[in-house]
Amino acid sequence: MKITYEHMYNELFRVLVKNGFSHEKAQICSRIFTENSLDGVYSHGLNSFPSFIGSLQKGYINILAEPVLLESLGAMERWDAGYGPGVLNATFGMKRAIELAKQNGIGCVALRNSNHWMRGATYGWQAANEGCIGLCWTTALPAMPAWGGKEPKLGNNPIVFSVPKNEGHIVLDIALSQFSYGKMRTYNMNNEILPFEGGYDSDGNLTRDAGKILESKLALPIGYWKGAGLSLLIDLISMVLSGGRSVSDLGRQEVEHGVSQVFTAFYLSGLSENNTMYDRINKVIDELHDSLLLNGFDQVRYPGEGTLRTRNQNLKEGIPVVGSIWDEVINM
Amino acid sequence: MKITYEHMYNELFRVLVKNGFSHEKAQICSRIFTENSLDGVYSHGLNSFPSFIGSLQKGYINILAEPVLLESLGAMERWDAGYGPGVLNATFGMKRAIELAKQNGIGCVALRNSNHWMRGATYGWQAANEGCIGLCWTTALPAMPAWGGKEPKLGNNPIVFSVPKNEGHIVLDIALSQFSYGKMRTYNMNNEILPFEGGYDSDGNLTRDAGKILESKLALPIGYWKGAGLSLLIDLISMVLSGGRSVSDLGRQEVEHGVSQVFTAFYLSGLSENNTMYDRINKVIDELHDSLLLNGFDQVRYPGEGTLRTRNQNLKEGIPVVGSIWDEVINM
Repeated sequence: MKITYEHMYNELFRVLVKNGFSHEKAQICSRIFTENSLDGVYSHGLNSFPSFIGSLQKGYINILAEPVLLESLGAMERWDAGYGPGVLNATFGMKRAIELAKQNGIGCVALRNSNHWMRGATYGWQAANEGCIGLCWTTALPAMPAWGGKEPKLGNNPIVFSVPKNEGHIVLDIALSQFSYGKMRTYNMNNEILPFEGGYDSDGNLTRDAGKILESKLALPIGYWKGAGLSLLIDLISMVLSGGRSVSDLGRQEVEHGVSQVFTAFYLSGLSENNTMYDRINKVIDELHDSLLLNGFDQVRYPGEGTLRTRNQNLKEGIPVVGSIWDEVINM
Repeated sequence: MKITYEHMYNELFRVLVKNGFSHEKAQICSRIFTENSLDGVYSHGLNSFPSFIGSLQKGYINILAEPVLLESLGAMERWDAGYGPGVLNATFGMKRAIELAKQNGIGCVALRNSNHWMRGATYGWQAANEGCIGLCWTTALPAMPAWGGKEPKLGNNPIVFSVPKNEGHIVLDIALSQFSYGKMRTYNMNNEILPFEGGYDSDGNLTRDAGKILESKLALPIGYWKGAGLSLLIDLISMVLSGGRSVSDLGRQEVEHGVSQVFTAFYLSGLSENNTMYDRINKVIDELHDSLLLNGFDQVRYPGEGTLRTRNQNLKEGIPVVGSIWDEVINM
């Protein structure tokens, strides 16, 4: 089943307004959820919308919240997001970081009391669209062990790096677990084994059995001890810059709620050599594309390479939706 | 064989001055090489010193170079390191990023035409000692394939994150390959198999045989496709911010020379809540230490946890050295 962009956007907008959103906030929110599906990240687009509305209704999200400036050191600011909707908070955080970067070359916004930002790449694209490098990350519930541990202590803390490019920016959006829990649920449902070790079973053995990892909540950090270290540092930096919750604070709650996030932008278009910069970026990408290939691969891609292609295809042919989820939304 | 800190420092200082270093530059350089060994990172301390002097003598390093400011956007600056010694360039880069952070909350310095910085953690400690979060990275020769490729296209581009802590900062210093080439050489020499897959053999199969990876130059990125993406983004960001060489540019040279580096500092001590911050950091670390352990592990550690212990032990008992390398240095 396929739905046009406008149709999906209008339905989500309607549901958001019905649930008390202002028109302005409903516009941003429905645009981002729809764009996530449009770009092929269905898990963080339409498919997340019902649970997002559920979180609103349970009171975990305050749709009236406006970010409040707590402290400014010039090019770095600390804000309280007041438990507002994650996509609005993150859009605000990156927008403000870009403004600071345009004034100072670099800008940073730390947000406390934020919520799930859905798809991190959204904010990487936002920065790149403004001629900036974007770097942002968010904390998340404990879902990985420390290196040598067998309890969930670390968040998979997604990180995003983006660099502008002429046609389709280069946007890396990775969680620090080898596989997302969403992906592991899919493997498990299909009775398929993971292509690489993805975590530990409850006895502490590395395994490719997604079901056992879903049970233990011990996803494997990328690069073993390296990703575990990276996750801890992202956690600590988010906590100290925002003054908000740590991952272990989040772990004492029933749900992921009130996370700490950091948005940094570097203003590339302000540099004098930016006229040759885009050619140099293309040259690096061309050389990557020229790589000899391993058996079983038909091309080497840069992060985000497929996004524009999927976007254009879905614009033309409609956005694929799961019928039952779409029905749920139109009946909201 | 063990050598006191002063003895090692004085010998390195003597050799540097003999090779044309000013007293001031020789002081910084010999301090950093000695501290790297003092902290237990022998591979990037004394053990690298002879090849460092070799690079000087071959003309790859310009000991007279002074960094030149090319462009300033306020809190972000672009400098040309003029092929100076990497440890001096990096010390300068982080020092200037810290100054900018103290003025603006955040500061960033991009360096072009730099050289190998030896141990990245040095600059993480430097930032943390000044009450800053440090974030820096460097590019390096192509040593890993793109995801799906079977040619070295990506650098292992070490990245460093640091957060200040009361007794011994939290400093993550990781290359983006699962194992460093130095470590793989050690495994190979000892005829030991790697504990995890560390790269591809020349036929493109994942392997734990370090010898085969040394041959193919196809080290595995951390987290497979994730680390490959991270490496590319670090490369592109370093290139566009500094205007310097990309990893593929480096690959067209005979040696690693003229690398691009980025140093960012966030001024934590400028934030009003920094009085409770150190307690909160300790609490996160305490909870990590409390983790139940996997079989075969006797503790969970934070990145950099062993550094102060090794430092104090080596200060007391002397710094272990390889006799032949020490002899080489004292005869220089």
